[in-house]
Amino acid sequence: MTAIDADRLTAKLAAIRLLSLDCDGVMTDGGLYYAADGTELRRFNVRDGVGIKALMAVGVDIAFITASRTPAIQHRANSLGVRHCFVGAEDKLAALKALCARLDVPLEAVAHVGDDVNDIPLLQSVGVPMTVADATPEVRALAVYAARRKGGDGAVREISERILAARVDAGASRASSDSAAAQPVPPLYR
Amino acid sequence: MTAIDADRLTAKLAAIRLLSLDCDGVMTDGGLYYAADGTELRRFNVRDGVGIKALMAVGVDIAFITASRTPAIQHRANSLGVRHCFVGAEDKLAALKALCARLDVPLEAVAHVGDDVNDIPLLQSVGVPMTVADATPEVRALAVYAARRKGGDGAVREISERILAARVDAGASRASSDSAAAQPVPPLYR
Amino acid sequence: MTAIDADRLTAKLAAIRLLSLDCDGVMTDGGLYYAADGTELRRFNVRDGVGIKALMAVGVDIAFITASRTPAIQHRANSLGVRHCFVGAEDKLAALKALCARLDVPLEAVAHVGDDVNDIPLLQSVGVPMTVADATPEVRALAVYAARRKGGDGAVREISERILAARVDAGASRASSDSAAAQPVPPLYR
Amino acid sequence: MTAIDADRLTAKLAAIRLLSLDCDGVMTDGGLYYAADGTELRRFNVRDGVGIKALMAVGVDIAFITASRTPAIQHRANSLGVRHCFVGAEDKLAALKALCARLDVPLEAVAHVGDDVNDIPLLQSVGVPMTVADATPEVRALAVYAARRKGGDGAVREISERILAARVDAGASRASSDSAAAQPVPPLYR
Repeated sequence: MTAIDADRLTAKLAAIRLLSLDCDGVMTDGGLYYAADGTELRRFNVRDGVGIKALMAVGVDIAFITASRTPAIQHRANSLGVRHCFVGAEDKLAALKALCARLDVPLEAVAHVGDDVNDIPLLQSVGVPMTVADATPEVRALAVYAARRKGGDGAVREISERILAARVDAGASRASSDSAAAQPVPPLYR
Repeated sequence: MTAIDADRLTAKLAAIRLLSLDCDGVMTDGGLYYAADGTELRRFNVRDGVGIKALMAVGVDIAFITASRTPAIQHRANSLGVRHCFVGAEDKLAALKALCARLDVPLEAVAHVGDDVNDIPLLQSVGVPMTVADATPEVRALAVYAARRKGGDGAVREISERILAARVDAGASRASSDSAAAQPVPPLYR
Repeated sequence: MTAIDADRLTAKLAAIRLLSLDCDGVMTDGGLYYAADGTELRRFNVRDGVGIKALMAVGVDIAFITASRTPAIQHRANSLGVRHCFVGAEDKLAALKALCARLDVPLEAVAHVGDDVNDIPLLQSVGVPMTVADATPEVRALAVYAARRKGGDGAVREISERILAARVDAGASRASSDSAAAQPVPPLYR
Repeated sequence: MTAIDADRLTAKLAAIRLLSLDCDGVMTDGGLYYAADGTELRRFNVRDGVGIKALMAVGVDIAFITASRTPAIQHRANSLGVRHCFVGAEDKLAALKALCARLDVPLEAVAHVGDDVNDIPLLQSVGVPMTVADATPEVRALAVYAARRKGGDGAVREISERILAARVDAGASRASSDSAAAQPVPPLYR
């Protein structure tokens, strides 16, 4: 991993306005379930969803950015209320940059969680490159934070809680002041 | 966990008339399988079903209470003969209280098994708050009993057997006397 | 486990003419996948299938006997050429006895592999009660042989190989002499 | 495993022009998911796919050769651009030999990855017999290289990276010189 001072990490985590998530290997354990009719299923984790919702409740935007084209990922985004879902993204960094421009969020305020080589361009560009416990070595080397949990086994929940804790530590709320739900941490985590 | 005297725990377990079960993370390992058509699958455990049926055979009511809306959970309830199945329960505690009123069961005679933060209100309200081996720390802190097994890996079976054993230890049958099936423990467990 | 002399076990295994298999927890790891439309999926193991086919090749009959009603189990039987498949068997022992009568196989020449309490009557009746690594204690106590592998993780393959090895050790072929395929062990295992 | 000198192994790996892959137990963990309608699903691994694409990018041909008949395997091949996909191959060695003749690749330049007894004829015929961490003993004995990872858990990715590394070590590119993509290793791995 890339060494970073603990206070500096907390400050960076507290300043995150957009959490960009790879799907296969991050929101899942990398399993691709193929059915006989050619459709694909994905296995997500219920606890990751709780973490994602908690972040959205304090005003952090969430994006799914994946090269995969399966509709199952879009369905998962819909069920969580994640509006920024890019499936079939050949150029994941281009997709992220376009989203940042639209949301007016600088890359420095973006965290990306990736697990494999096609996440490298994003991890090299965002303010907070993050990864899962079972990432490939190339990816792990770039991350400033690696979850202790594996993809699909609660890594995104762990990262969500780490970001929420950083906001408490930093005493800072990045949520827009016109949102009633905007809080450093959601009620259940206080 | 919340400390409780062993004899007191046995007495409380023996007095349980309703076992309320969260689904995702308790009856399952938290995996949410999304299909390409937007439907969801759940992976349950055959041995949990044996435990649930054994409890029903001695007169303990079973309820599934979940915020999830997938029909798969209702199908699992149907296959086990669990009549009290609340899916899409935004307010899980309200659903439980309404059921208790209908069944004329006091909350003190209810055990709830939960694994995550949205179970906290229920765990704070029932007589016997229980959890699984891999619960979140906030939930574990509230429980008076935590299964050694994880959700979806036999935790509900283990809890069922613990309740049945408590009934034997307490020499008490809470089943209504007009039910031929009402026994402290079902035949297979004697 | 029930203690048995090693030579006696080998003799009993070599004499098996029918291997009766529970499905959930033996051919699978106990996972029950429910789809939104109420149908169920099962996860079987490819290597168990190789073992089952090897036993059939030397003339050992195979039966699936399960209380479950899902068609998925019948499909697995069909794909392996297992003709004796009893799904929805409320009384598993009655189903086995009827099959034995039809095949003219004494219960002493039957091995049953079970993992849970509803297998107990069968395990108490057959010549060779067997189980998997993760069986319930009541079942394990009855078995004369427990696979080191868990259900769904190759336990049936391991048991198949143990039976085939016993036939070699005993120098005995129980296959009918009019079957060209009848051999102590199939070609791939010699 | 079959002992082989490290330099000799690297030379053999660098010379591979066709990687032949068994599916069940190699590209998957051996799980066969049966649905109620008789169709089958397979769980593949996203990271194996990245390795397969990296090999194709440097000109190594990929083949799936499986006795299984499920369309799910063909769909996985299609999604990766693997053109040589043989499902329902009763005689896997015959299928491989026919492919080698068509591609004009000698068996000495073929690596096959298998995990079970029906792979033995192929492993005995190809230049580089390979296997996964959890192969059957008969197969492991034949392999000159066994991945540390299990089937379905990244074994094919690990093998892909080992082949790519051997090409770098050997300083040799076997890709046809008329392919713009032909490289000792793909860009992401340099």
